[in-house]
Order: sequence, then C-alpha cells, then structure tokens
Amino acid sequence: MSKTNPGRFFEDYRLGETIRHAVPRTVAEGERALYHALYPQRFALYSSDAFALECGLDGAPLDDLIVFHTVFGKTVPDVSLNAVANLGYAEGRFLKPVFAGDTLRSESEVIGLKQNSNGKSGVVWVRTTGYDQTDAPVLRYVRWVMVRKRDQSAPAPETVIPDLAPTVAAEELVVPEGLSFDGYDFDLAGERHRAADYEIGETIDHVDGVTIEEAEHMLATRLWQNTAKVHFDATHREDGKRLIYGGHVISLARALSFNGLANAQMIAAINAGAHANPCFAGDTVRAWSEVLDKAEVAPGIAALRLRLVATRGAAFALRGEDGKYLPDVMLDLDYWVLMPA
Amino acid sequence: MSKTNPGRFFEDYRLGETIRHAVPRTVAEGERALYHALYPQRFALYSSDAFALECGLDGAPLDDLIVFHTVFGKTVPDVSLNAVANLGYAEGRFLKPVFAGDTLRSESEVIGLKQNSNGKSGVVWVRTTGYDQTDAPVLRYVRWVMVRKRDQSAPAPETVIPDLAPTVAAEELVVPEGLSFDGYDFDLAGERHRAADYEIGETIDHVDGVTIEEAEHMLATRLWQNTAKVHFDATHREDGKRLIYGGHVISLARALSFNGLANAQMIAAINAGAHANPCFAGDTVRAWSEVLDKAEVAPGIAALRLRLVATRGAAFALRGEDGKYLPDVMLDLDYWVLMPA
Amino acid sequence: MSKTNPGRFFEDYRLGETIRHAVPRTVAEGERALYHALYPQRFALYSSDAFALECGLDGAPLDDLIVFHTVFGKTVPDVSLNAVANLGYAEGRFLKPVFAGDTLRSESEVIGLKQNSNGKSGVVWVRTTGYDQTDAPVLRYVRWVMVRKRDQSAPAPETVIPDLAPTVAAEELVVPEGLSFDGYDFDLAGERHRAADYEIGETIDHVDGVTIEEAEHMLATRLWQNTAKVHFDATHREDGKRLIYGGHVISLARALSFNGLANAQMIAAINAGAHANPCFAGDTVRAWSEVLDKAEVAPGIAALRLRLVATRGAAFALRGEDGKYLPDVMLDLDYWVLMPA
Repeated sequence: MSKTNPGRFFEDYRLGETIRHAVPRTVAEGERALYHALYPQRFALYSSDAFALECGLDGAPLDDLIVFHTVFGKTVPDVSLNAVANLGYAEGRFLKPVFAGDTLRSESEVIGLKQNSNGKSGVVWVRTTGYDQTDAPVLRYVRWVMVRKRDQSAPAPETVIPDLAPTVAAEELVVPEGLSFDGYDFDLAGERHRAADYEIGETIDHVDGVTIEEAEHMLATRLWQNTAKVHFDATHREDGKRLIYGGHVISLARALSFNGLANAQMIAAINAGAHANPCFAGDTVRAWSEVLDKAEVAPGIAALRLRLVATRGAAFALRGEDGKYLPDVMLDLDYWVLMPA
Repeated sequence: MSKTNPGRFFEDYRLGETIRHAVPRTVAEGERALYHALYPQRFALYSSDAFALECGLDGAPLDDLIVFHTVFGKTVPDVSLNAVANLGYAEGRFLKPVFAGDTLRSESEVIGLKQNSNGKSGVVWVRTTGYDQTDAPVLRYVRWVMVRKRDQSAPAPETVIPDLAPTVAAEELVVPEGLSFDGYDFDLAGERHRAADYEIGETIDHVDGVTIEEAEHMLATRLWQNTAKVHFDATHREDGKRLIYGGHVISLARALSFNGLANAQMIAAINAGAHANPCFAGDTVRAWSEVLDKAEVAPGIAALRLRLVATRGAAFALRGEDGKYLPDVMLDLDYWVLMPA
Repeated sequence: MSKTNPGRFFEDYRLGETIRHAVPRTVAEGERALYHALYPQRFALYSSDAFALECGLDGAPLDDLIVFHTVFGKTVPDVSLNAVANLGYAEGRFLKPVFAGDTLRSESEVIGLKQNSNGKSGVVWVRTTGYDQTDAPVLRYVRWVMVRKRDQSAPAPETVIPDLAPTVAAEELVVPEGLSFDGYDFDLAGERHRAADYEIGETIDHVDGVTIEEAEHMLATRLWQNTAKVHFDATHREDGKRLIYGGHVISLARALSFNGLANAQMIAAINAGAHANPCFAGDTVRAWSEVLDKAEVAPGIAALRLRLVATRGAAFALRGEDGKYLPDVMLDLDYWVLMPA
C-alpha cells in the first residue's frame, strides 16, 4: 500500500470526530521578518517591541495572520487536499497573542456534513483550533469546503448543517490581557484616526497596488506549510498557472489597508470570507475597505467591523447586476479589528 | 476627507520643523538572514558572532545597511512620496552598532528649502536621525529631494541652502566602543589585505555580477517598509517596469565589493551618493571601487574612503565626455569604511 | 596585483594541506524560517521545539541540510571557483546537531590529487569538516571536483586517490545525545510508518512537484554564501541560463520526500551523491525514493539507507539502456536517516 498521503475524501469524515493535524511549528523572528518582506505590513504593534510594550503587551506579538496561516496550513493535508472549493469561514476568533518562540499545532472537529445531490462530492464543516505549546487555544474558526468522494457509491452521511453566527458578536471579542491604548502614540502609529473618526458605511480606498510574483506567493505558502499542489506545480493546471493561496491575498490586502486604517492594529475576529475569484502571478492587487460596525470592547479600546476587498480593478466595485462578484474581485473579507476608541 | 496619506508637498515643509516618522521597527535575526539571502553579503563581522566577539563587540551587529534602509524607509511616507528625484546624500555617520532585538525609529529635521524657478516644485533638505529604543542615535545623514507642489500658487518659502561638508572628516568617524582588530583573523575574514595594502587612487574590479529578479527587490524594499509605489506596482509606469529602490543597488554593490575589499568591515560614514541611472529587474549588476583617501582613526584601525560604483557595464567607466554619468552606471557612492590598519 | 580572489587552480593544491575557509557564519531562527520558506520542509523534529523536546533534544535543531549548505558554501571560494565539475560525495557524517545561535566555519584537508591525462585539469579530493563555535565538529564529508589548471605546463603532482568507503557503515552513524523516539507522536509527525514498515527494495513516489523560480534558488544559494557566479549571473553562460546550485535540488527533493517518509526525521550520513543533470528555473522537480538498507542503531532508533532521486520526469526511471542517467534525472543521493524503529 502506498505510504504517501492521498488526503481524505468526503466519505472519510465522521461527524464529531477530531482530527489532530500534523507538524507542529515553532514560529519566531524569522517568520516575522519574512512576513514583513512578503507583505507591505506596517501596523506598529506587530512591527515594534517598544510600541507593543507601550500598549501593555510583553513585546510585539507575531502578526495575527501569521497565526492564521500557520494554523490553517496544518489543516490542508487533512481537509483540503481533495477539496474542490473553499466555501467559507465563520466564527473566527483570535484568543491569545502568539509570541516569537511559541509552537503552534492545530486540531479540527467535524461539525457538519452534507452530500451534494450529484453524489460526487459533499460539503464538510470543520471547527479548527490552533493551540500553543501550553495547549492554550490561540485561534478558533469554522471553515467549510467541498470535498470529492473517492467512491461515488459510498452511502451519504446524515446531513448536519451547523448553526453558525453571521458575525462574531462584539462582546465575544477577546481583548488581549494587558492591552491598553492609553499611552498610544498616533505619530508613531502613522495616522491620527481613532475609531471615533470612522463612520459606519464609510469606505476607504487604500490606493496602493502590488504586482505579485510567483516566487513570493510560493515562499509565503511554503512558510505556512500549506502543501496544496495547485500553488507550486506549474504542470498541474492545463493553463500552466499556479493558483495563489487565498491567504496570500488576505495578507496582502490587510497590509495595504494600513493606508487609511493604520490604527486598526489587531485582528480580533473573522466573521466571514469569500475568495471570490482566483489570483495569479502578474496580478496587481489593490484593496478597499468599508466600515460595517463599531463597538467599544474595553476602556479606550474599540472594535471596528470591516469589509476588506482585494481587487484587480477599481475601488468600491464589488458585485455585478446579477449579484455575483465582479471578475476583478478576489477577496471579500468581513472581520473585526481592535483600535483606539 | 480622505483618511489615506497623500504625502507632503513642497509647501507643506517648514524650515526647522522636526517630523517624527511612523512605524518603529524591531530588527532581529530574521532581518539579518533575509539580508544575507538578498545580497551576497560576506563581511565576517556581520556574519559571525564569534568573529565579532574576537573584534571586541558583543556579537555580530546587524549589517550597517540594514540600519540605513530601515531608518531611510521610515522617512519615505513623509519625505519622498511626492518626490520627483532623490538628489543627494551628505554627512552620513553611523553612530552606534545595532544588534538583533533593537527597535529603530526615525526623525527628520527640515534644514533647507529652495523653490525651483518653474514654481512647480522645490528642493527639501532633511537631516534624518535613526534612534534605538533607548533614544540613542544610531545613524544621522542629510538627504535632499525634489518635491512637487500641490498648489503652484502657494508662496515660495525663503530660500535656505544648508552648508554641507563635502565629506565627513576622518576625525568625526565613530569607532564603535570596544572595537579592536588586534586579534583579527585574516583567514576567516577572507583576504590578506589590510588598509596599508591599499593605495589612494587604486581601483578594484569586484568581478562578480548578479542578475536581479522582481521578487528580490520587492522583498527587500518591503522589509525596510519603504512604500513608494514605483517599486511595487507594475501598472504605475507606462512601460510596465518597476523601478528598483536605489538602496537595493547600494546593498548589492557593497556586498559584491567583498571580493577585493573583504576586510573593509564596517561602514562608518556616507559622504555622498548619486543614483545615476535607474535599475530594473533583469539588469546584471557589477561593481568596482576606487580608493579615495585613508586615515588612521584608532590604534590598529584605519578608515578607507571609497568610491563604490554599480554598473551594468564595464569596470572603471564612470562618466562620458560630457561629464555626465554613463547610461550603464547606476550608483556612485562615496563612503568611509573601518578596517585593520 | 589584483586584490580579488581568482580561486585556486589544480596546481595550487598540495596533498595533506589544510585550508581554513573564510567567513564563519552564525545561523539562527532567520535561516530556519528562510529554509522553510524555500523548501516544503515539514519534518517535525526541525519544525517544532515542542516536538524536539519530546524526542529528548534541547529544542529543534537547525535543519541538517542548513548545516550541510553552510559548511559547503564556505568551501566554494577555495575549492570550486575554477571547478569544471562536482564529481562526488562520500563518507559524509552529521556529528552533532546545530542549534540557533551556533557559529559554523569550515576546514578542508586535501586528501587526493590526480591530474587528468589531457594535462588541462585534475581531480582534487578534500575532506571538509564543519565546526561550531566550540570547535566541535558538526559535519564531515569528502567531496571531489575536477579543477582546471592555470598553467598547463605546471608539473603533475604524484597521483594519490583516497580509499573511500562505498557507504558509511551503520555502526558509524552518530545518534545525537539524548535522542529518543520512545514518546514519539506519529499523529503530529504526519505519518504512521516506522522503520519496520519499510522493506529493503521498496520504492516510494513522493507525488508532489515544485516549479522553481530564479529568485528562489538565488536567495537560497546566497544564504549559504555560495558565490559561484554560474548561479547568479545570467550573462555568464551563452544560453543566458543560471545554473541552479545542486544543493538546492537536494533540499527540495528531501523536503518533497516527507510525503511517504515523514518519520525519516534526521539525516545521519551522506554515502554518495551525483548531480546527474543540471537544473534550471522553470523546471518542475519531483522526487522518489528507494529503500537500500536498514539497521537498528540505538534502542528504538533505526537507520534507513535511502536513495533519493530528483527528476523532471517519471518516478522510478533512473538510467537508460546505456547505463547513463536519464536526461530528466537531476539528483541521485544515497543517504542514511534516523527514525523510529
């Protein structure tokens, strides 16, 4: 029998089972430097130990999306090797900052199953948790993917569709222990705007664009130990293109959003996300945001709920008349950030 | 009003004002490793803790040009976002070695202003200082740039042109505390030549060439948090080319100069510098040096003043008969290094 | 006289001489992160401090091939600058794990010389040892290269061909102090197969392919301070191609071999190796392995002797009817790994 991992097929998942994903990873200054070389990342809290100390933390945490990508990457061999599509995210919450030297591992619980009517595939919902070396959870989120069946005659499981919150409630956001924006230095952070300066419904064009190279997205995707072959093997697709990991686009758009949202320091939650269209090397990625909601979550600390859109096209264009995402739109992400109130 | 940073225009600068630049940055082993992957850097003092300890330091400092790029990068959003040209450098001095874990920030004082006769732009002189987390200055230099006016009818400021030294005097070079070349291991450093072996007027062809890729210069430029869009956005110029950050060429040429100047360990000062012609991906960069001056600055420690030229063409060719830089020349840098006397 | 390093020619080597190679290098978390970004590396022992602690080590060592490349890279200016061909490896043994913060340097002893009958070149055998900052040897291996003569009339040295072991004997493999697989977590390691599950003669197709970019192999090769110009200068070869450092292919193939050999944690020895054909950017590299031998080397710890082949073509094809390597084959490596028995 072959010793290589064929990945799981739809009929291999059991409702309620927990999958311990392989290859724990210690993340450190090297990952941080690479992250800051791969994305135009400038949020001060993740850039400077001195700034983070002033904000009550024990130093600069590793970028929240380093944590997301690392936790996510571990799930790929068990969840998305035979996936046809990454359908959505929900109920994502960052539970504890991760610092250089911490070791991350991931577990996923199967919380939903629904075979498609064609009998060839099905949808799998997993709730994934990232843990550090003390077994403390650092990130938890739900993802659902469409997975092929190995054997179309395998019986369909009972359909269970989990009941997911449309957004994480503001009162469920975790404010990291010690975090305070009382002595916040807006000069060093880069902009003057606090949460009070943003209005619900306001949109921001982040202006800058970045043209993506093959080497960059592969370096990033490997760093997260995401092994899906579509990202690396130019012979895999008939058109010879390598599909860029959707998380690369998330990080790029989030970094670009600094210009207009420089004080949106920490990602607290991911409410929903769609990889609307594929992204390829040569694409020039731009980003725009929309303020969806606001809440005060601790003294002096506000949460802003934002829509972050990555696009090859014009700002503020999202869907066509048919209600579908425009072809230029690559990402539509709904998330909460923490910032000075 | 837009929340994004439009950059400063010529009429926004006031003589004597100090600009605190945004986004302090902790630099560590990750930045070092990336620097050594991006440039063929082999100076032993920055490569080996053991070698640096033998030279009286507390371990290998971060490469002096990591410090330069980081301090410089912070100034870009305030100084060069609307710059038409980077005109020159002067009076650059490295004041204190930076070690892994230090946090750098930058401030610039406006020391000169001169509106151009066309009324459309002007020259701004700034003296920029990089500080570490203890507020100790680590690098100070003067730079002047040509910046567009937002409003051509804005009144011209009083013309003030700062009085700048043509070169940093040898007695003003800072020798890092503890530095000693008494136990210097020339085998491990890579070459036998001490300062005494170089003659003023001597030229050295550094032989090797490096062909630049888009991914490399973008990784580097992002690492220094330099956000100028010409470096990243292939749709920005009509020819679809991304302009390579001039500092990338400085680092590349300096690293190539190891072959013939392996003992020119530390950069002590930048006297002057011209980015003579733009550099693009696909260019094969070569370097040559000329010894301009020598001085003994401490027992056993000499300073060598060097011209470093980066070129796509032949060594030792610099200017045409018209006195202008030849089209192949990309960089003409005048700097001081410290090395065994 | 030129101050640049022309490299050694065949007549510059003396039997028995020891060459101290230049530029010691401190390797740390940054090198690890870059290694994991450049190669799809997932062996848990090098990925996770927590996993390595469970295996009795003081944390995750730096990847064994980081050590190999760093030690090898230092030899390039003295051994292979004028080499026509890298002919082989033998008797390579990893003697001590290297951890973040260690400083590596290399020495080579000339152990064999044989001028070619054409009088234009000769073969040089060197035994290279990598040392850490305590002067403890961490890696030792024999390599032989064909080197050009500067002066064809220089007299031929006495021919001495060293007597080299065809493979490292299992009893000579070094098991790192403290290493134990008693509490080994096969879930976290990624696969269930222990050494007992592999049979001599068994072959494994590692399935995945990676298409190589210029930026990637140059970043890697520079990181190891390997300065051979064929890797960096697109004007050096008439066809404008940059030859990829053979070690880049070794690391890529070894990382790909995770899929089927996830528990083959540590490389203990390199018995032999051939860079069968050159590799260039754009190639899609795949890998397959063959189990050549097995041995128990300590309680619960087995050694597996493996052939690792990197190819652009189909798995398991190695040589043509003429006995020569097929044109698609880039690497044929014979090595020992340590894994749970």
